[in-house]
Order: sequence, then C-alpha cells, then structure tokens
Amino acid sequence: MSQTDVTGAPRRGKVLTLDTMNPNIKQVEYAVRGAIVQRAVKIEKELREGAKKPFTEVIKANIGDAHAMGQKPITFLRQVLAMCAYPELLKDDAFPKDAKQRAQRILEACGGHSIGAYSASQGIECIRQDVSRFIEKRDGGIPSNPDNIFLSTGASDAIVTLLKLMVSGEGRTRTGVMISIPQYPLYSAAIADLGAVQVSYYLDEDKCWSLDVAELRRALRAAREHCHPRVLCIINPGNPTGQVQSRQCIEDVIRFAKEEGLFLMADEVYQDNVYAEGCKFHSFKKVLFEMGPEYSSTVELASFHSTSKCYMGECGFRGGYMEIVNMDPAVKAQLVKLVSVRLCPPVPGQALLDLVVNPPQPDEPSYSSFMKERTAVLDALAKKARMTEQIFNKVPGITCNPVQGAMYTFPRITLPPKAIDKAKEEGQVPDMFYCMRLLEEEGICLVPGSGFGQREGTFHFRMTILPPAEKLEIVLHKISAFHQRFTKEFS
Amino acid sequence: MSQTDVTGAPRRGKVLTLDTMNPNIKQVEYAVRGAIVQRAVKIEKELREGAKKPFTEVIKANIGDAHAMGQKPITFLRQVLAMCAYPELLKDDAFPKDAKQRAQRILEACGGHSIGAYSASQGIECIRQDVSRFIEKRDGGIPSNPDNIFLSTGASDAIVTLLKLMVSGEGRTRTGVMISIPQYPLYSAAIADLGAVQVSYYLDEDKCWSLDVAELRRALRAAREHCHPRVLCIINPGNPTGQVQSRQCIEDVIRFAKEEGLFLMADEVYQDNVYAEGCKFHSFKKVLFEMGPEYSSTVELASFHSTSKCYMGECGFRGGYMEIVNMDPAVKAQLVKLVSVRLCPPVPGQALLDLVVNPPQPDEPSYSSFMKERTAVLDALAKKARMTEQIFNKVPGITCNPVQGAMYTFPRITLPPKAIDKAKEEGQVPDMFYCMRLLEEEGICLVPGSGFGQREGTFHFRMTILPPAEKLEIVLHKISAFHQRFTKEFS
Repeated sequence: MSQTDVTGAPRRGKVLTLDTMNPNIKQVEYAVRGAIVQRAVKIEKELREGAKKPFTEVIKANIGDAHAMGQKPITFLRQVLAMCAYPELLKDDAFPKDAKQRAQRILEACGGHSIGAYSASQGIECIRQDVSRFIEKRDGGIPSNPDNIFLSTGASDAIVTLLKLMVSGEGRTRTGVMISIPQYPLYSAAIADLGAVQVSYYLDEDKCWSLDVAELRRALRAAREHCHPRVLCIINPGNPTGQVQSRQCIEDVIRFAKEEGLFLMADEVYQDNVYAEGCKFHSFKKVLFEMGPEYSSTVELASFHSTSKCYMGECGFRGGYMEIVNMDPAVKAQLVKLVSVRLCPPVPGQALLDLVVNPPQPDEPSYSSFMKERTAVLDALAKKARMTEQIFNKVPGITCNPVQGAMYTFPRITLPPKAIDKAKEEGQVPDMFYCMRLLEEEGICLVPGSGFGQREGTFHFRMTILPPAEKLEIVLHKISAFHQRFTKEFS
Repeated sequence: MSQTDVTGAPRRGKVLTLDTMNPNIKQVEYAVRGAIVQRAVKIEKELREGAKKPFTEVIKANIGDAHAMGQKPITFLRQVLAMCAYPELLKDDAFPKDAKQRAQRILEACGGHSIGAYSASQGIECIRQDVSRFIEKRDGGIPSNPDNIFLSTGASDAIVTLLKLMVSGEGRTRTGVMISIPQYPLYSAAIADLGAVQVSYYLDEDKCWSLDVAELRRALRAAREHCHPRVLCIINPGNPTGQVQSRQCIEDVIRFAKEEGLFLMADEVYQDNVYAEGCKFHSFKKVLFEMGPEYSSTVELASFHSTSKCYMGECGFRGGYMEIVNMDPAVKAQLVKLVSVRLCPPVPGQALLDLVVNPPQPDEPSYSSFMKERTAVLDALAKKARMTEQIFNKVPGITCNPVQGAMYTFPRITLPPKAIDKAKEEGQVPDMFYCMRLLEEEGICLVPGSGFGQREGTFHFRMTILPPAEKLEIVLHKISAFHQRFTKEFS
C-alpha cells in the first residue's frame, strides 16, 4: 500500500480500508435499513427541494416504527417520563396522582434521585422486580426471579449480548445458531458480526408460516456436518411473517431443544400484538414450566421483550429486557460482568419499561384513559391486519397469509420471468428490483423478501401495517395496481 | 458432558457453561464495576437491614456518576427534555421561550414529531448539524461535516463500534490497539472481547502522567514482534489520571501516528473538565488541522464526546457522539451499515446532546441561569480537584499528581511489604486488599489501581472528586487516617 507522492517521499494509504477492516463486518447485512431505505431518504430530500414525482410523500412502510406512522404516545407513559425528567412537575396539579406516584417511585430508585445517574448494569432493582411480577402475572403465577432479569437497550441489545456469550469454537466446532427463514435480519447480522454459523430452518408458508419440528431436525442434522449448533432462535409472534405459534408447537420446540441440547432464545417482543381469532400468545417460559420439572429445571431459555412494539411503539427510548432461565450461575456471573462494561441501559428507557410492566390498575385515576388509548391502538392494528390480508389476496399474483400477529405482512409475489431476467441484467435481486420500481413510481418503501430470506425461487416483500387505516387502504390499493401494471409490463 | 440420570436415561449438562462459552468474554475485566463494587452493594444492603458497621453509609467514589453524588441536573436541559417527552407542556407558561423553541425544533425533527420514533441510525440530522456547528465553534472555525458525525449510546458505544471495525488478522497480523497505562478499562475490556491485542504504553507518573513519544515508539516496536498495531487510543483529559495534554504533546502524537500508520482514537469526554492553571483543552481535530494539509488530509482520526461528564453529568441518558476524520468512504459506508443494525441511539439522549451542543445564548431568557448552574458545577469541581491533591500530598506514603482535569485522582500509595505478603496470602492483588480493607472499615468504595494498569511494583487507587465538598473533605481525611493505620499495622 505504500506509494510515493509527488515529492518522492513515501506516501501511505489509509490505515483502515475495505481490505484491512474487520472482514466479518463486511458480511453484515441489515435490509430493514438497507439500500432501498437510503434511496427513499434521497427521494424525500428531492421532494423537499421541489422535484416533481408521481407522488407527494414517501410512505416508509419498511420499519415497525409506530410513532413515525402517526400513532400517538400513550398519555400516562409520557406524563410519568416528563416528571422523571423534570421533577419540579411533581408539584403540578395537572398530573394525576398515580402518574406522580410512579415517577416518585422511579426517582427514589435512581442514584441521587435523578434519571441522569447511571443505574446498576443489570437495570434498576425495583424495575427488575416489577418486570418479574409482570411475568409472573402474565404466566399464571409461574415464579420469576429479578436476579434473572436484565434490562437492555431495546431487545436488540440483549439478543446480541446473549449470542455473543455463546459463540466459541473454530471450523466444525464453531457455534451454529438456528434461525427461521424468513427471519428478522438482526439475527443474521449478529451472526455474521460474531463470526458464528447461521443454520437456517424454513417456516412453512403453506401452513401460515408455521414451524415444523421435522424441518428443525433436518436443518440441525445438515448443520452438524460443518458446525456445532447450540442455539435455537424463535420469533413469536413472527417477524416478518406475522404468525402466532400454537401452544402445541411451542411444546414441540422445547422438547426438541432439550433432546438436541440447544439453548432457546425466544424473541417475544410482539406479545401484545395478536389479532387473529383463535390465536393466543403463549410465552415459552410458561409452556416450559407447564411441561414439568424434567423440562423446567433443565432447558436453558432466554426470552426478550421491548418497549418498542405492542401498544406502546416507543422505539426511540430503546427500552427492553431479557429473562434468563436455567443459565449456569458461573455463566450468569460472566454475563453480569459483560453488561457492566457498557455501564447501563438508558435510564429513561428503563423508566418507560417500568410503566409498561406496571401500568395503571382499575382503582387508579389514569386507568380508564390508559385502557382506552391502549385498546384503540390494538383494535386499529387488528382491523388493519385483516384489511391488509383481504385487499392483497384479491390481487392475482399476490398471496398473503393472515397477519395473525406482530406488525407486518409478508406476502408472496409472483414475478414474471422477464422481470427476473431484467433484474439480473441490472445486477439486482428480483424482489429488490420490484420494490425499487414501486418506490420510484408510487413513493412506497417496502423491504424486499430477500432481506429476510425466503425459499429459493420465491419472492416476497415485508410491509408494516402501521400507517393510519385510510392511508393504509390507499397504500394497499396502490401496491395492488402497481403489481398488476408490473406483471403486465413484463409479460 | 453427557451423563445418565437415576433412571439410566442419558442426562445432559448445561448447553452453555464456562467451558463452552465465548472464551474472549472470560478475559474481559471491568474494574470500575468489579468485585469491590459488588461488595459495596452488599454492605449497603446489610446496612439497610440493620447491620452495625463503623459507618452509616457507603460512599461510592468508584465511578464518575455526578448525579448519584448529589450534583443537580441543569434546569434548562431537563425542561426541554420534559417537553420532548410530553409535548402538552409546550402550552405551559412556566417554561421559558428558548426551552420551548429547543423542544419544538427537536420534536419537528423526529418521526411523527415523537421522541418515541426511531431516528436515523447515525442520529437525527439536525442534531448532527448542531454537533458540527459546536465543533466548528470550539475549534476556531475548522470545518466539520455532519455526515462525519455519528450519535451514539454514550461514548462507550461509539468507541467499541470503532474498535470492532478495525479488528482483523490472525496471530502476528492481528490488530494491535495501543492504550495508555493507566487506562480506562472500557478499552482493555473491548480489546479482550474483540480478541484484539492490547499494546500498552506507559504514562509518566513523575511528569504528571504525561505522554512521551519515545515511550509510544518503544511500545510500538515491541508490539510489532507479535501483532499488527493499527490504532492509537488517547484519553485527554485523562481517565483515571486527570492530566491535560499540552498542545505540543498532541502534535507529537499526531506526527507519530502519521509516521507509523496508526488510526487515532481521541477520547475527549472530559473536554470541559479542565481545572489547573495554565492547562487548556486542545482537541485532536483542531491540532491536526493546524498542522497543515499534509496532516489534516491524511491522518485518520475519530474523536468521542458524551453527555455523561463535563458540567452535565447526565450518565443515565447515554448520549454521545463521535466525529470521524479522513475515514475511507467505503469504510464509512460499512460503519453506517453496522450502526443501522442496532437501529438508533436512544432519542432522549440525542435530544440531550442537542442541548449540550446548542446551549442557551446570551440573548435568550435561560442564558443567565444556565450559565450560573454550569459555572457552579465546574467551579466546585476545580476546588475539589485542588483540595484532593492538597490533602493527599500531606500523607506520608501517598503521592498525588495535580488533578489537572477530568473527575478523578489516581494517587500512588506505598504499601508495606508485610501488607503485600498478606494480600498474596489471601489471593488478592495488594491494592485490592487495601481498597477492600478501606471499604470494610470506612465504607468508602474506591477502585484499585490494578483495575486500570500501573507499572509493576507500584500501587494506586482511583477516586472520583465528585462528592460534595464537605463530604469529600471528610472522605479524604478518612482515607488519610486509614492509610496511616494500615501502614502502621503492617510495619
């Protein structure tokens, strides 16, 4: 890399280049904020600068960002947070008593009674206690120990931390991490970053994206030829696929994990987002404990939750937690040490999480308005989930499973062979080509299915159901019309 | 690991054990929240439960956590944050106009006008612009490009991210990272976590912990035998050592980095914390640009700042930024991709950072009270810095460099040989033995020098100067008395 400059003196190139940088990072991909989103941001800028387009705004249906799509924050949560930030407001009569009590309790648990102090690295103790009580209540009384709760910077942080803890070995002994396809690309990105081995198991699109243990077994057997699979990741309700797992399926997965010696990671950040009739959220923890001591005392499990989804949609606060079950105490001590290096999760996010796990109770003044706001959000999402499925399934060439839960639809799109050829000609994967065309023509930003993984030869996109109902309806019809136009153009 | 249980059926051990976990994580150490702090937390619990001790409270002088030590948040910052959390307050006449304008501007830059929306992964654009303007003003007009600003979850996050980007190679080609000894243990922890090679250079205690290029050269030459040193980390003002680097020293370091092909990382989170007469903070960026285009267009630099230190002390919000200079654009694109996986830094922390880089101006209503609060904090710290040095230097067996800046003193302590033997007998490093005794006898929690690194055969501790002046004075006298008692006991 050394060269000489015009004076003949030796000249160095950059120290840090694509050739010298961490090679794992080059393998990282995160489609939810990838090329298409960068293009969307550019188009927005062009629009602001007066460019003429066939549309007046870009609708970013690429990411589960409820507030950005117009969902209003829940009043109670924000009142308490405002008082935590500026405790003078505790004297303000405009705030209800229960909100004040919550704020006071959080502040008393903070160093110097300020959310500007560091907290314990695992999170503020009384908030971890509240999380445990929340889990116990949710799971019908199955005990939860605050010592097993780790607050985090959103769920992503906890997921990456736990994966990091589990990566070891080289070559055929390297840790394999089983993830669903389609998956949420945080997983594939973290696996690449850590140099672990991705072990893909496919969800069954024909059976509403359900998970089949035979497929888990197939993937595991094949992986054992070249790595050491030690972790099984499940997202329930599913992202990007929106399925809600049956209790039976969860039991089967747990049995499989025990038989095969796998650490279970259950990503349950959409636990309140269940819409389809007959579907119900079952936590892995609850099912594990209901299977009896043979399971509940042996199977290692980490489950994850977040303040970013459900009815709150408070993504910006980066609040979350994980609960660990049956972790070797010596490893847990290492985990405690590891999280201490980053000092603590953001305290405003911890405070917010406390309100989520300890919301207003029926005898408290904020209860009725809190419940009204909460129900309105969840009811609207349920309606939009149905609307999405109905409109898409009317379009020839689009097939859409019911959005049983979470915040996304992941419809399958049939692309004409000529479109596939054209995409290849332009050096793009076909569904990226499709989504880019949609973005340029309609100003709608989706994420191509290839960003989440899909069976070879199939094509999808992920779209959030978060825009307001009237806008969502227009978006769905625009996509439908685009799809027909696109199909015609390349037929 | 397979065994059989009482029924004769095969029984598995844990999937995740000390033997199977990530071996790098086992090497991670972070003394600032290590064994001594865990013991301090236990003692606090014992006190709450009524245990009799020679003291009534534990004083945690182990960590730079200003609010926990009683420093009050700056009113202006918190007013704006409260309005950002609960925009209804924008209607409240109790808040000054400039605070309202700041809140409004931040909210307008947020998706859906809510700090609950995700921001761009690099941080909110208008805040990055404000950061650039702040840097330009600080550095006398040297240009700063908002595209080179990355907001972060505290400075730690950005430091770890950048180190991660730079780690590659195996064996003798593995990335070496030069860090000072003593150092802030985030660096050694991140290096262990990433499996990079720590290259230690020693600060000169006899010259007020100054940095000497000859020592850098010695360390570099030695390291080249077994790794590929590519990064040079500097903390200025110093943590834990409190020195403020001269302009000349910074110039020498930059010249050295250029000659030797090193990427510079300048940790400048204490940039407002300069107390000693004749000392001034010089940013690496400014010195680099003043050295002319030969340097300013070639030397790769990242500098870090945070909302946790200076006069704000807002650790809990986890706000921060880094500015990168001369980074290869292709690598920068990889960095943008990498940060996108974690979605975004906490938005309340971003908002707070915006206020730090864009504080009230002389013609604004909050200016005078803001300046009064700010000055009071910094003046008090300056007084405490002097008091600390004066009291410690009166004690035989304690030698203390002036606390020129930052928030810590790192005095050298002479330990009697019998104490060293006794520590070894108990399996402790001598300064840990000393600090543990101090904790048990006086309820004062310090961090042993061994947690930061020190020359073989020397012993130190790190103590923050953050307790209120009256309390700090008592603490200093208690430590002095303890030291004399301890010395006598083991003589």
